[in-house]
Amino acid sequence: MKLEEYLEKTAEDVDLELDRLFGAAPGELSKASAHLLIAGGKRLRPAVTILAADLVNKGCSREIFPAALALEVTHTFTLVHDDIMDDDSNRRGVPTVHCKWDTPTAILAGDVLYAEAFELITRSIADNLAKVLSVEILARTCVEICQGQHEDMSFEKRNDVLDYEYIDMVGKKTGKLYAAAAAIGGTLAGGNVKQTQALHDWGYFSGIAFQIQDDLIDLITPSEKSGKDQASDLSEGKQTLVAIKAREAGVDLSKFRKQNLSSEEIKEAIDMLEKAGIIDEVRKTAEDYVNRAKEMLSIFPDCDEKRLLTEITDYFITRGF
Amino acid sequence: MKLEEYLEKTAEDVDLELDRLFGAAPGELSKASAHLLIAGGKRLRPAVTILAADLVNKGCSREIFPAALALEVTHTFTLVHDDIMDDDSNRRGVPTVHCKWDTPTAILAGDVLYAEAFELITRSIADNLAKVLSVEILARTCVEICQGQHEDMSFEKRNDVLDYEYIDMVGKKTGKLYAAAAAIGGTLAGGNVKQTQALHDWGYFSGIAFQIQDDLIDLITPSEKSGKDQASDLSEGKQTLVAIKAREAGVDLSKFRKQNLSSEEIKEAIDMLEKAGIIDEVRKTAEDYVNRAKEMLSIFPDCDEKRLLTEITDYFITRGF
Repeated sequence: MKLEEYLEKTAEDVDLELDRLFGAAPGELSKASAHLLIAGGKRLRPAVTILAADLVNKGCSREIFPAALALEVTHTFTLVHDDIMDDDSNRRGVPTVHCKWDTPTAILAGDVLYAEAFELITRSIADNLAKVLSVEILARTCVEICQGQHEDMSFEKRNDVLDYEYIDMVGKKTGKLYAAAAAIGGTLAGGNVKQTQALHDWGYFSGIAFQIQDDLIDLITPSEKSGKDQASDLSEGKQTLVAIKAREAGVDLSKFRKQNLSSEEIKEAIDMLEKAGIIDEVRKTAEDYVNRAKEMLSIFPDCDEKRLLTEITDYFITRGF
Repeated sequence: MKLEEYLEKTAEDVDLELDRLFGAAPGELSKASAHLLIAGGKRLRPAVTILAADLVNKGCSREIFPAALALEVTHTFTLVHDDIMDDDSNRRGVPTVHCKWDTPTAILAGDVLYAEAFELITRSIADNLAKVLSVEILARTCVEICQGQHEDMSFEKRNDVLDYEYIDMVGKKTGKLYAAAAAIGGTLAGGNVKQTQALHDWGYFSGIAFQIQDDLIDLITPSEKSGKDQASDLSEGKQTLVAIKAREAGVDLSKFRKQNLSSEEIKEAIDMLEKAGIIDEVRKTAEDYVNRAKEMLSIFPDCDEKRLLTEITDYFITRGF
């Protein structure tokens, strides 16, 4: 099966089950909790959990499907709380929870999802030790995501962030949840320590590449295609890998740090960055992480699941939005 | 051992271990997470977990001590998030997290504690199935606490809350965490379904009695003794059991719904409520829950732990602050 088809099929399964579990719950708080969760999304993290499980123990993914949902629910909880912190008003094509309801309801809606994620782990059909280990992985991951988000916010007040600090931050904020998605799938499927660690590291490195690509997309992809403002990171002076490498190379982007950049200005900035080799350098960094991720899968024999995970890693840095 | 001594000893153990685990972690987010947690408190929930475990399997409480901490960590996470929603500025004698830091940091600090609570459950020495069940109990409990807090906030916009709605709300907001504290202690100690259910129900009914007493304390205890504003619920027109029963009895408290009530006004309100028999009726309701709670323990043979749990229930409605 082609990756695209596989992801579509998984997303359908995930949508159906999330809708069944959360779509019809009564009460405003349940509605607020379900709001972003059932508004769609690529469902990449559940796909990773399922693939990791089938890679370790072909066919077991139906049994651990609730854990795959747990990863999407965790991701959504972080989005609901992040949207409050960043005061974002739209997400997945719908108003954010604190805008549609209010901040107290959004805090509670995120907290509800947080608990549901842990409960979903326990709903899998798997060895109890594997479930306990998966709860541990998810808990540790949530702490790291919070630390990553806190670092991301603290970077906004700084202009001297170094590239390794950036990598560490996105590793926590994005890498660790992909790492958990893969490691939990492998653990519940009965994988040994070596397999689980390899899957964890695959997810971690892939997630870092994903986030670097996200920053490139923000800069390069026109808003008609991405559905988001182009070059918003540039206009906000955000410490992305592009901004950090530009500063290190002596490229001054300060004149673009203003609201409502024109398409000419965005083009000028991209030209400057391309001429200085910054964009190539950032792409190269993302590719390095992609290669490190793929290397981690070398301990597994060739099979469809391994191929699809490899293709996911490639997709992370080839996608245009 | 007397209850007072027992609670003091347990609080010391809890303080020591929380300080060791959270007191010295580096970084602002860790400091914000630890802030309220290590600021003290009665540590009643961990004491309940320990007593429930020793009631089921004498001497096993050292092995499940991390789970006892998990209950205190969960309680603190809810306080950190509730303080944001209610915009309270002081708690446990220190500034609240969102006041000392800011709202985004407080959201994240609560989220960190949330994950740590689940991780602490897994750190107990117990059967893996018991750990999985405990994770399930904690997760379900957290959902219910959130629902209780949401109902509590929605009651502020209503003047027609009925007593059973109030009981259901405080049952979720306060009862369920005591229920979880006892049920998790019993489960990890190897208790059977009957024992665990009895402990759960003991905690649930005790917690409801605790909250009714909390509302009475707010009304009756002078601020010199309680450290909080006296009659703040009355002044805010909060739908407590006192307010609901007063409304049902045709006692009009609307003139006390204003800021800065004088001690004469508070005395007048208390006199009115006493004359109408409201305070006795509310006390009677709390006593009913205390009796229902104690009944739940009848399946256990007499022992120190059973006596101490019974005394905790009595203490919940005899304490003056």
